[in-house]
Amino acid sequence: MSFISIKSALTDSAVVGSRIGVRGWIRTRRDSKAGLSFLHLNDGSCFDPIQIVAPAELENYEDEVKNLTSGCAVECHGLLVESSGRGQSVEIQADSVRVVGWVQDPDTYPIQPKRHSFEFLRDVAHLRPRTNTFGAVTRVRNAVASAIHRYFQERGYYWITTPIITTSDAEGAGEMFRVSTLDLANLPATPEGSVDFSRDFFGRETFLTVSGQLNVEGYCLALSKVYTFGPTFRAENSNTPRHLAEFWMVEPEIAFADLEDLAACAEDFLKYVARETLEHCESDMAFFARQIEPEAINRLQHLVDQPFIAIDYSEAISILQKSKRSFEFAAQWGLDLQTEHERYLTEKHFKAPVIIKNYPAEIKAFYMRLNDDQKTVAAMDVLAPGIGEIIGGSQREERLDVLERRMREDGLDTETYDWYLDLRRYGSVPHAGFGLGFERLVGYITGIANIRDVIPYPRVPGRADF
Amino acid sequence: MSFISIKSALTDSAVVGSRIGVRGWIRTRRDSKAGLSFLHLNDGSCFDPIQIVAPAELENYEDEVKNLTSGCAVECHGLLVESSGRGQSVEIQADSVRVVGWVQDPDTYPIQPKRHSFEFLRDVAHLRPRTNTFGAVTRVRNAVASAIHRYFQERGYYWITTPIITTSDAEGAGEMFRVSTLDLANLPATPEGSVDFSRDFFGRETFLTVSGQLNVEGYCLALSKVYTFGPTFRAENSNTPRHLAEFWMVEPEIAFADLEDLAACAEDFLKYVARETLEHCESDMAFFARQIEPEAINRLQHLVDQPFIAIDYSEAISILQKSKRSFEFAAQWGLDLQTEHERYLTEKHFKAPVIIKNYPAEIKAFYMRLNDDQKTVAAMDVLAPGIGEIIGGSQREERLDVLERRMREDGLDTETYDWYLDLRRYGSVPHAGFGLGFERLVGYITGIANIRDVIPYPRVPGRADF
Repeated sequence: MSFISIKSALTDSAVVGSRIGVRGWIRTRRDSKAGLSFLHLNDGSCFDPIQIVAPAELENYEDEVKNLTSGCAVECHGLLVESSGRGQSVEIQADSVRVVGWVQDPDTYPIQPKRHSFEFLRDVAHLRPRTNTFGAVTRVRNAVASAIHRYFQERGYYWITTPIITTSDAEGAGEMFRVSTLDLANLPATPEGSVDFSRDFFGRETFLTVSGQLNVEGYCLALSKVYTFGPTFRAENSNTPRHLAEFWMVEPEIAFADLEDLAACAEDFLKYVARETLEHCESDMAFFARQIEPEAINRLQHLVDQPFIAIDYSEAISILQKSKRSFEFAAQWGLDLQTEHERYLTEKHFKAPVIIKNYPAEIKAFYMRLNDDQKTVAAMDVLAPGIGEIIGGSQREERLDVLERRMREDGLDTETYDWYLDLRRYGSVPHAGFGLGFERLVGYITGIANIRDVIPYPRVPGRADF
Repeated sequence: MSFISIKSALTDSAVVGSRIGVRGWIRTRRDSKAGLSFLHLNDGSCFDPIQIVAPAELENYEDEVKNLTSGCAVECHGLLVESSGRGQSVEIQADSVRVVGWVQDPDTYPIQPKRHSFEFLRDVAHLRPRTNTFGAVTRVRNAVASAIHRYFQERGYYWITTPIITTSDAEGAGEMFRVSTLDLANLPATPEGSVDFSRDFFGRETFLTVSGQLNVEGYCLALSKVYTFGPTFRAENSNTPRHLAEFWMVEPEIAFADLEDLAACAEDFLKYVARETLEHCESDMAFFARQIEPEAINRLQHLVDQPFIAIDYSEAISILQKSKRSFEFAAQWGLDLQTEHERYLTEKHFKAPVIIKNYPAEIKAFYMRLNDDQKTVAAMDVLAPGIGEIIGGSQREERLDVLERRMREDGLDTETYDWYLDLRRYGSVPHAGFGLGFERLVGYITGIANIRDVIPYPRVPGRADF
């Protein structure tokens, strides 16, 4: 007798009326005065548990079934029938309930069928997948990640991995973690007295990558449409609920594309991911709307339905200045936009997602394409109501002379980046790409405020600084 | 006028006879005595280039078209027609060829339309995506990765990420890289004189993960079917063509599963990935069979067609001992199998993929389930002809008392692993999982002997030890 997932039992109408087997972990047990027990069983395949009706006639009813507690693992067989009870459409009339794994000392089992604080769950990170919240987070993460891959695969993009341990600091995008096998108690020294990295694993200083973008450009200028989806690292002590030291990033890079093409891709991509998540995670999203963020579903639906507004940075500054709002940070041409500005634009002024384009060159990276005004670069940020920036991207500087000048102005060593300049020496074409932080998107979708609660395990259990 | 991919132009019969635009990079130019030029254009969307027939009537024919060299980027428009020439089914009769990016100094451009050595290409890693070989490797990597995700997604598995920076050494599976932001020139010390890791970024010693398995078990025992697909790291100085310091690993973990279930899954999974790759990368695989490994397609087809042989480790030892072969390493019960043994079994004895099960407990990890004979554990390796071990896995020890005993025997600190023991205290069920190295699989599929040539970028350009 084979088993089916609880998701199949609950949603596949073809199995109603047949004898099935399911297995999973007990959420709750309720004993009826009529001499039977109702077990709610969850196997993680979907949000909802299935109801098992366990009659007193079961041979292990008194000894085992009546001792089942939250977290016990069982295998059940029985007839799947339409349920007359409230809250479920089908239930299983069990003819066998086999206990596979008991819960030792049920009174101290951390995951009780009640609401736990996120802080508490961070300390039992290995057990929190068994809660409604983390089950739902896991399924949403999976749906979002699948949608990301599907979006690009269906459109002819090739997935690229770029080195995670790297000798370059990419674009100076952030503080880096050192990777080393040197014995710290016994560091090798050069004759000049500094650390001798030629004795390290790779024969030189190495770090964890902050972005695969520069590397992926080489693939873009050969395979036309590529994307990365992998982990990146920032060793910044910005101990805020919106930053992670380790996070997964999606970075598409498109050849023969300009900023307009990129903006269109970003909008299409976000709408696709939002639509797919709403479709594939209906019960999970309903849970988040019920328990975490009442607007979770509405704002995702708005993201799908509303055309994004596109304005220039200069116009954004002008709107902010005319708003007469007293912002903590001044809105002034030449300064970066702050979260308060971004949220004003999306939530108050436009009440829609906004793409801001053409930022001042001084506040953006050297590889972004210089516009004809010589003051701005072809960069864009996509802002969404309720979160602010969710995507950042740019058209890349494809002109060798301009790129070299910008690098010198930024004080970069053109020798180190000679390989990157090569890409402009040989068959250079306009190209553009963006970056999206996976966990930030999942945090936005689920409405979970602290981003460390959308990753499967905190880096260091219970700690805030990861 | 919009553009289509060269893949569409070559394979979508609906566009034959219509005017289309394509863009990409010139592979070759051949001028005909009849006063026209044949350009072969590649955009990476597929292996084959498309032939552009550029007539002398083009206004930039003499000045530009006749100066095009390998690597130049162009946009072409023209009529897509059936070709009478050899080697292609369709070609474009160009009415415009616009040069988007020239190649500076064509004579020194490293990627000439000829065969380059892998060593040479490692030094121009940023340009090697433009070669036939690395284009094909990239598309095969993409097809394999997509097939991996699709296999598990279609079967209800959820994708999990486990921490890459970790405080645990997992299972002692290998040497680890340290991750740190401490200033090496000025290391903080404890009063006892050792390095004070409480001052490091995470407040304690951290490393790069060697495996997500232990973490993913927590998810398996809540969501039933899960898998990881992410990077892992080994700081071993095994400078061989078969080992990487950084590689992507696939690790499914299945609840309510034993070793038989796992072996069935591994076989089904490998056949699926092989079948999908053959289907989606026909031209790329034909190239590998032509240029790299004549058996590339045949052996992948055999993997799909042949039922895997399953034998116990003890039987494998017996076969090896009876073989009368003189192996470099003795085949003896209690010792691990060497590559020479694995290859004898798959290539000489069975001439088929072989799953070897139930290894001696002493040579396997503490978390593998102890068999009733108290001597062997429910571990398995999947061996394939032409490579040897490609998958390693096991049923996990789900019994608290046995696991604790095994950990003590291995000298492990049960306090450190208390969270892992918790998973056996609360609703423990039989579960099993395997690990597969993504790059090793891609190396096997493409027939590329040195695994550093199946990753997009070597860690350190030109170096052997990455």
